[in-house]
Amino acid sequence: MDAVPFRESVAILGPGLLGGSIALSLRRSCPAAQLRIAGFNPEEIARARALRLAELITEDPTEAVPGADVVVLCTPIDVMPVLARQIAPQLGAETVVTDVGSVKRSLVMELTAIFGARYVGAHPMAGSERRGLAWAKPDLFDRAVCFLIPGPDKNFNARASAFWSALGCRPAECTAEAHDEIVARVSHLPHLVAAALLVAAERSGENPLAFSGPGLRDTTRLASGPPDLWRGILGHNRDAVRRALSDFRHELERVEALLARGRENELSEFLATAANLREQLLPGAGKID
Amino acid sequence: MDAVPFRESVAILGPGLLGGSIALSLRRSCPAAQLRIAGFNPEEIARARALRLAELITEDPTEAVPGADVVVLCTPIDVMPVLARQIAPQLGAETVVTDVGSVKRSLVMELTAIFGARYVGAHPMAGSERRGLAWAKPDLFDRAVCFLIPGPDKNFNARASAFWSALGCRPAECTAEAHDEIVARVSHLPHLVAAALLVAAERSGENPLAFSGPGLRDTTRLASGPPDLWRGILGHNRDAVRRALSDFRHELERVEALLARGRENELSEFLATAANLREQLLPGAGKID
Repeated sequence: MDAVPFRESVAILGPGLLGGSIALSLRRSCPAAQLRIAGFNPEEIARARALRLAELITEDPTEAVPGADVVVLCTPIDVMPVLARQIAPQLGAETVVTDVGSVKRSLVMELTAIFGARYVGAHPMAGSERRGLAWAKPDLFDRAVCFLIPGPDKNFNARASAFWSALGCRPAECTAEAHDEIVARVSHLPHLVAAALLVAAERSGENPLAFSGPGLRDTTRLASGPPDLWRGILGHNRDAVRRALSDFRHELERVEALLARGRENELSEFLATAANLREQLLPGAGKID
Repeated sequence: MDAVPFRESVAILGPGLLGGSIALSLRRSCPAAQLRIAGFNPEEIARARALRLAELITEDPTEAVPGADVVVLCTPIDVMPVLARQIAPQLGAETVVTDVGSVKRSLVMELTAIFGARYVGAHPMAGSERRGLAWAKPDLFDRAVCFLIPGPDKNFNARASAFWSALGCRPAECTAEAHDEIVARVSHLPHLVAAALLVAAERSGENPLAFSGPGLRDTTRLASGPPDLWRGILGHNRDAVRRALSDFRHELERVEALLARGRENELSEFLATAANLREQLLPGAGKID
């Protein structure tokens, strides 16, 4: 089925990797959409202007918001509540507010208190270990899962879903609590594990990192992510991350025991289970949709 | 400096991902090299023949070895000693034997007992989570570190080094013990960690893998590797892997404590340290060479 053409007016607050990719995606796929961008970093603003990324590009978010049909918060999560209070007085009664925040429970509480039913929390499972508009690309969201945390109003929920679908995402509705548990396991814990692998290797004294190949490079890609951004994410999702960490350590201990006791067949079964699970992550494998 | 043209006769035993890539690389860069291939899997042999990968392609390793200047063992490590005893009677006094085995301490002992100084153990840090000739490619070794474990004879050592250099590798001499410690940290532990992340996520009940993005896909790529091959590798390097696992768990416990106590600044420092280490893994960053 062809989607209904998306022709709303969209205000993107924070034209970094994600905000910039939203703009590029809409430019490519939804020429009828009108774009406004507000940014806080002069370099990013200059880059957005050079790319002619929007009809209005400003350093003042309160200038970008009035009259917008959709407002997307694309800043680090710690900035979102502050920004939300700043723009709330300018926001129309019918404006949908959504966001890209990697943690949802705390954010949905804070932003719903400010915007009411107009806020529909989202989290597209797309990104990069790189930060900034220079890394943005129009196909970043193609077929990515986008979590949506439905609010109390079906109309606002449907409009948020249409917005993310217009970017190429596959919306997946879920509670904020379930979202935070899931991302703790597929994103936040993998980030910590990647970081711990590097730090532990470095401490070993043999300088092993100098001799690594593509395996370690891929395994630890996430660890290149911006530390301050990730400190915020991990801090906001602390409880779920600790639960995920505990489950992970339990598996590691099981493997360690198999190795210690020379249980090669059980080790092989463990590796086979993991190899089969990994196949499910490949494009086209049995994921939701 | 231009390398001396490599024009020796090379017998590749096991034309899988690595053996096949060696053949493709020599075909591309060293047209004067003569190739023989012996394989044990009829499908791979048929594929090698279809690709005209060598002057001689046979199912009998004792047919491929006589007169070869260099013999490369490219089978799983458990097969190597058996194969070595089989070919030893056919081997010339000046033939260099080298290999691609991911573990060196046990292998160097076994193969040196069979071949003497003619054996120069190697381990190119290149590969894929995929197995088989279908995944082979001529540039697999381009600029990859290749560990070399020098034997007692300088001439054989130099010839093994010239062989791996001809494939585009950057030879790195090291003891078998140091090799095994290093790969435990940059390859074997990352493999186990990738597997444990998947198994732990799957057990959590929220079906998180269905919602994952490119981050988890990359972090767990190694876990797609062939379970039987990896059981052998982990079993042969058990002590070093257990040491690496213990150091890694120590780092995880440190991070868990920082999270539990809300020590956000120290968490941020930890993430920044890891992000800086990860930059060292990128092509062109300060690695050996």
